[in-house]
Amino acid sequence: MVHKKVTLIGKSSESFDAAVDDAIDRAQATLDNVHWIEVEELGVELATVEDREYQAEVEVAFQLEQ
Amino acid sequence: MVHKKVTLIGKSSESFDAAVDDAIDRAQATLDNVHWIEVEELGVELATVEDREYQAEVEVAFQLEQ
Amino acid sequence: MVHKKVTLIGKSSESFDAAVDDAIDRAQATLDNVHWIEVEELGVELATVEDREYQAEVEVAFQLEQ
Amino acid sequence: MVHKKVTLIGKSSESFDAAVDDAIDRAQATLDNVHWIEVEELGVELATVEDREYQAEVEVAFQLEQ
Amino acid sequence: MVHKKVTLIGKSSESFDAAVDDAIDRAQATLDNVHWIEVEELGVELATVEDREYQAEVEVAFQLEQ
Amino acid sequence: MVHKKVTLIGKSSESFDAAVDDAIDRAQATLDNVHWIEVEELGVELATVEDREYQAEVEVAFQLEQ
Amino acid sequence: MVHKKVTLIGKSSESFDAAVDDAIDRAQATLDNVHWIEVEELGVELATVEDREYQAEVEVAFQLEQ
Amino acid sequence: MVHKKVTLIGKSSESFDAAVDDAIDRAQATLDNVHWIEVEELGVELATVEDREYQAEVEVAFQLEQ
Amino acid sequence: MVHKKVTLIGKSSESFDAAVDDAIDRAQATLDNVHWIEVEELGVELATVEDREYQAEVEVAFQLEQ
Amino acid sequence: MVHKKVTLIGKSSESFDAAVDDAIDRAQATLDNVHWIEVEELGVELATVEDREYQAEVEVAFQLEQ
Amino acid sequence: MVHKKVTLIGKSSESFDAAVDDAIDRAQATLDNVHWIEVEELGVELATVEDREYQAEVEVAFQLEQ
Amino acid sequence: MVHKKVTLIGKSSESFDAAVDDAIDRAQATLDNVHWIEVEELGVELATVEDREYQAEVEVAFQLEQ
Repeated sequence: MVHKKVTLIGKSSESFDAAVDDAIDRAQATLDNVHWIEVEELGVELATVEDREYQAEVEVAFQLEQ
Repeated sequence: MVHKKVTLIGKSSESFDAAVDDAIDRAQATLDNVHWIEVEELGVELATVEDREYQAEVEVAFQLEQ
Repeated sequence: MVHKKVTLIGKSSESFDAAVDDAIDRAQATLDNVHWIEVEELGVELATVEDREYQAEVEVAFQLEQ
Repeated sequence: MVHKKVTLIGKSSESFDAAVDDAIDRAQATLDNVHWIEVEELGVELATVEDREYQAEVEVAFQLEQ
Repeated sequence: MVHKKVTLIGKSSESFDAAVDDAIDRAQATLDNVHWIEVEELGVELATVEDREYQAEVEVAFQLEQ
Repeated sequence: MVHKKVTLIGKSSESFDAAVDDAIDRAQATLDNVHWIEVEELGVELATVEDREYQAEVEVAFQLEQ
Repeated sequence: MVHKKVTLIGKSSESFDAAVDDAIDRAQATLDNVHWIEVEELGVELATVEDREYQAEVEVAFQLEQ
Repeated sequence: MVHKKVTLIGKSSESFDAAVDDAIDRAQATLDNVHWIEVEELGVELATVEDREYQAEVEVAFQLEQ
Repeated sequence: MVHKKVTLIGKSSESFDAAVDDAIDRAQATLDNVHWIEVEELGVELATVEDREYQAEVEVAFQLEQ
Repeated sequence: MVHKKVTLIGKSSESFDAAVDDAIDRAQATLDNVHWIEVEELGVELATVEDREYQAEVEVAFQLEQ
Repeated sequence: MVHKKVTLIGKSSESFDAAVDDAIDRAQATLDNVHWIEVEELGVELATVEDREYQAEVEVAFQLEQ
Repeated sequence: MVHKKVTLIGKSSESFDAAVDDAIDRAQATLDNVHWIEVEELGVELATVEDREYQAEVEVAFQLEQ
């Protein structure tokens, strides 16, 4: 029943909520038993994108299989 | 005119803004003179809820009566 | 190609996203080459405003002219 | 379903585990629906006690009644 | 012998020392067995007061009755 | 001789020491050359378990194969 | 109504209060609408001054003109 | 009545409690008037020891003689 | 376009720059699309090596494939 | 020309300034070439003293003799 | 004699030392009386540059004219 | 086998690596069994030196004799 945490950075052209959801979507697409996430950092990239790219760095906790 | 701070965790199935508002609503329902709040942590619970539960831990500052 | 960072506090009666955008809008109105921002603090002012004022303190990074 | 967090300092002449349990025991004796605790600081008092007093500062999270 | 900690913000038009004393005075007026305080933040409010208001956020530790 | 660090959360119904050991046991069962661990957070879950579940979040450092 | 924050270090041969006031005085002499300050660090210089120089690093928040 | 703080790292093959006690034992063997300790970090060494070596970095506060 | 971050510790008998490069070299040898790294900690090992081993703990950010 | 830093806790029944001066006085009585100090923590002891004891934990930097 | 601090990010294709020097060079080219700098963050950009760009975020302290 | 940590600040007119080495050299000249160091802060002094003085504050860990 040990959990593991990994760090992902989700992105969205719309909002911080959507950037967090982007990271959760990715985690759930490749990992079973994702139990919670914690937001570590929020930022907005402006230089290398067309408009504004909302970014959210999150820690994803999931249960390891035994 | 001393202020006191208490820590609340608001929740929402919709967004972080709504989770913060949830905590403010609760504070204002039971406390007078709530003056400001500070967001301490944002997270999303996935394991024990139906879909995604956005959570916001906030410090609520209110003025104590003399 | 040195970057400089300045600290701004944006505000909105609507949401944290809009408060961050408020700070970015101000930065882009007066600075060239704004490259990214980092969210430092989120809070809500209640005492001195009509309803709820969402506030976001952000660090704005922009490229200095040579 | 808002949670509130309060800070307690438990003590024990035996161990840090017992100091944490001391704080949980106190919380559960006076609060309903204590859901989790987080350890904030561990220390040992030596000057004002007979031998060694293990101390644990913990944040106690409990669900507020509606 | 469990201790509890609460967060207060004291104020003074004179000095930071007086702002800390303001918070201690308030704590001792309403709580028994206040054992120590820790200074968390110092600041000065200028916008909404006549001159300068020195502010001190402190954590107040007091012994809970058995 | 590069090391990598991963974050695990061990659990025990007995003690924090056993929760840390739980994470180390898991790490050593799946990784070679686990060299040290650092304790990041200690907590106790109460709401979703029978009694008290001691939890330890640890960073596990292991040597990568060349 | 965006605010900006700048970092100043005030000094005094007398006290920390006077060192903070020194930074506020400077800010108010050159900036309009200084709204609050936050104390970041306190220190005392001894090597390069005659006696003791109390120093206070503060963040100064002021309202930008529209 | 000035206090001084020094940083020690205690060790034990048994438990974190014993590692903290190891540091306190050493401090009390060489220093008078050790008044309290604060736990700074907990870790476990695995690479250079036979089994598991529990380690505790602690700050030791003792009263200086006048 | 989600990014993931992993933590590596590079080493060098020459310099901190080379220790950071060591971690980047390892990351680029096994991961595609390594986009940036952040230095978390610098240290020097003396006890278990011949002379001085410069070490750099870095967070490596790379783009996940879709 | 290497500097060393030690941690002292000064005390005063009057003010935080005097508590910091207490630590500096002690440092200068036993160490040559004390160059600066940094304030780490401010607190007030109430339980084991007659009235209020202002305390300041400071880091003292002094130049080592060659 | 008030000091001000500003945040710059210097860059170099060679080393972290050169990245810090890059920020100092820029500061000294446009500001009088630059007195010291503090390194805040070190990182390496890989995605948008040809090879490796060493970056150093520094706080630059300079004396304001009276 | 208890370790002790002390804080030193090394200096160099050449580089941060040399400033760290300066602190290690000093530690090894006066202490036996120096086992590792951790870099706490990097900075550059400009005001009171001829050119640029690179400084490194490090924690030095050494094994105490039994």
